[in-house]
Amino acid sequence: MKIAVLGTGGGARAHIAKLAGLGHEVHVGTRDPEATLARTEPDMMGTPPFGSWLAGHPGIALHTFADAADRAELVINGIDGRNAVAALSAAAEQLAGKTLVDYAVPFIYNPEIEHPWPTPWGVMPTLDPCDSDSLAEQIQRALPDTKVVKAFVTQEQATVVDPKSIGGGEHTMFVAGENADAKQAVTDLLTAYGWSDILDLGPLVAARGMEMYAHMHSAIGFALGFGTHFGIKVIR
Amino acid sequence: MKIAVLGTGGGARAHIAKLAGLGHEVHVGTRDPEATLARTEPDMMGTPPFGSWLAGHPGIALHTFADAADRAELVINGIDGRNAVAALSAAAEQLAGKTLVDYAVPFIYNPEIEHPWPTPWGVMPTLDPCDSDSLAEQIQRALPDTKVVKAFVTQEQATVVDPKSIGGGEHTMFVAGENADAKQAVTDLLTAYGWSDILDLGPLVAARGMEMYAHMHSAIGFALGFGTHFGIKVIR
Repeated sequence: MKIAVLGTGGGARAHIAKLAGLGHEVHVGTRDPEATLARTEPDMMGTPPFGSWLAGHPGIALHTFADAADRAELVINGIDGRNAVAALSAAAEQLAGKTLVDYAVPFIYNPEIEHPWPTPWGVMPTLDPCDSDSLAEQIQRALPDTKVVKAFVTQEQATVVDPKSIGGGEHTMFVAGENADAKQAVTDLLTAYGWSDILDLGPLVAARGMEMYAHMHSAIGFALGFGTHFGIKVIR
Repeated sequence: MKIAVLGTGGGARAHIAKLAGLGHEVHVGTRDPEATLARTEPDMMGTPPFGSWLAGHPGIALHTFADAADRAELVINGIDGRNAVAALSAAAEQLAGKTLVDYAVPFIYNPEIEHPWPTPWGVMPTLDPCDSDSLAEQIQRALPDTKVVKAFVTQEQATVVDPKSIGGGEHTMFVAGENADAKQAVTDLLTAYGWSDILDLGPLVAARGMEMYAHMHSAIGFALGFGTHFGIKVIR
């Protein structure tokens, strides 16, 4: 299958490598391919430059966001939450009619909010949108001809592509969206990734809860200790 | 142990009955005991009047919020989120120095928010406070001499008092708060309820995630079918 991954960060790389390993034709999208390849320093998250990573993963093509989307049947959005709507809107034509999986958390960093939590960030991030809207719904409104599916967001992407690394894979992945065929395509992809418990939460409004779970995910992560990987399982 | 339960709704009744069954001295608090006992019709949630319920549970005393708190060592807050801060503030003196477990979700019902979700409510509720504050933190600020612990909130209260009814009890309960002794007291109570996996999420700011999880809880509940009981387990 021809799959585009938009974004070159750590999460995007997890999907790119896994998809290539599964035999898919992977097209990676970035804002400015030349600028991405010219970088030689780690980014602010400490992720090594994409060019050197790409050198170790032959057969993967780097394009603009629009060109990558144009070449794919299914698109994974790894653009950060703050820039996603604008960047995806600029590629609306190439995304029309396609399934777009969104896993972004719409974090905003507000240094004016006093916060006592001893986070690695110092200040606890907040979300925008939150509660009465979600990033996934914003993307769907901006791209009415694209089939948006919210998924992957409740986990680290390294775990999303390797669910069996935790509890033998005995935990739950969630999907939400308006289009049943698109959700099935994402469910099939997740099954290929190794997931066995995939729960369809229904319409895209469920993305509010999935994105707002980021606070709970952070709290559990801090409680277990920084760097501990975990999942949650819905016990019926 | 002398335990007060503030509130007479379905969630409060689950705790009252369980605590009495465990041999604790239970004091129930309500805004106006005479008015509570005078009611003969089910409330808007369809819960039968408290007087008839109480008649089937001998040995349980009904007081004002302040009088119930005054008689207890540990207090469980079952007052709905919208009224909790005001009602608890009026009993600040009686709550001073005590552990207060809060399990409320600060739902607001806003009929002006257009919402496509086919919920039993018709319109999806939203939260206030949310994201940059929590009800538990508001209560703690209003009652600085009380040791507030957020707990129970990620589950139906019927499940909180009977965890083994789901998956043999193999799911996770969360606690958060500023005072280690208070969290230990709540953990001991949860252990008596039958919980074996109790995760301390740290300071009270973690209540934000616990309260915001309400959206995810609702979405999972709708996906599994109305009335299905479930829990979530943190898989390490």
